[in-house]
Amino acid sequence: MDARNHLQSVLHEEIPLTVAMGIGVVHCSQERVELSAPLEPNINHKCTAFGGSLYSVAVLCGWGFVFHQMRLNKLSGHIVIQHSEVDYKLPVDGEIRAICEVNNEINLSRFLKIYRRKNIARIKLDVKILFNKQEAALFSGSYVIHKESSV
Amino acid sequence: MDARNHLQSVLHEEIPLTVAMGIGVVHCSQERVELSAPLEPNINHKCTAFGGSLYSVAVLCGWGFVFHQMRLNKLSGHIVIQHSEVDYKLPVDGEIRAICEVNNEINLSRFLKIYRRKNIARIKLDVKILFNKQEAALFSGSYVIHKESSV
Repeated sequence: MDARNHLQSVLHEEIPLTVAMGIGVVHCSQERVELSAPLEPNINHKCTAFGGSLYSVAVLCGWGFVFHQMRLNKLSGHIVIQHSEVDYKLPVDGEIRAICEVNNEINLSRFLKIYRRKNIARIKLDVKILFNKQEAALFSGSYVIHKESSV
Repeated sequence: MDARNHLQSVLHEEIPLTVAMGIGVVHCSQERVELSAPLEPNINHKCTAFGGSLYSVAVLCGWGFVFHQMRLNKLSGHIVIQHSEVDYKLPVDGEIRAICEVNNEINLSRFLKIYRRKNIARIKLDVKILFNKQEAALFSGSYVIHKESSV
């Protein structure tokens, strides 16, 4: 199974609400994870995407990004959201797209080094919600990753 | 229809995902709005509530609080989330409960006065996610309320 299908299976099996929301993995590589969700099951009273759905797609996009980096480095652990902020800028009245990608502010090698040494590490990620090529929302999340046995 | 049933109907009709999540209105008064959601449809890979579900219940609790204040004051308008922050403190491995209540930091009369004058106003609300009487997460959201015709 390729990385994209693997991440999608994990999301659907482990978080049933992702199936109800129609969340799909569009892209999954070392550089970028991209998720999508159709508008219909995530619609709100203004016929745009519900803010809670935008948040859920974004938080899972960051989660999937960490999950894939761990997998590429043959590491396992629990990935938990600890703090988040969202700025809603524009309404989304079509398919929801969330993108989390490697940038200069993410120090992946430092994160992996700390995790290997301490079995716990933190990483802060930005996830963009795009609609019609514009940034409709910006999510910023701090994730904690820890070994199963350390909690 | 009483305020509790009215708010629940509005949520279920206008945001279909609230039905899939099993969101219910436990209490709706001028002083407090309280929502609930069962764990099962909102479960994650750790058998606790998915962070996106906790967020959704919280953002709707704040939304419902504003909705009810508007209704009590015979006002109408769109209520939109603009910015939010969440601190996740403890896992929730049972029913999700969210509470938004009047406190000294919410200046409701000022909010209503501005809305009546300008047809647009902002309000910042805190919503607590409680589990076993402990604060499991704290949501803080800035909502914008505007007249339908002003956008």
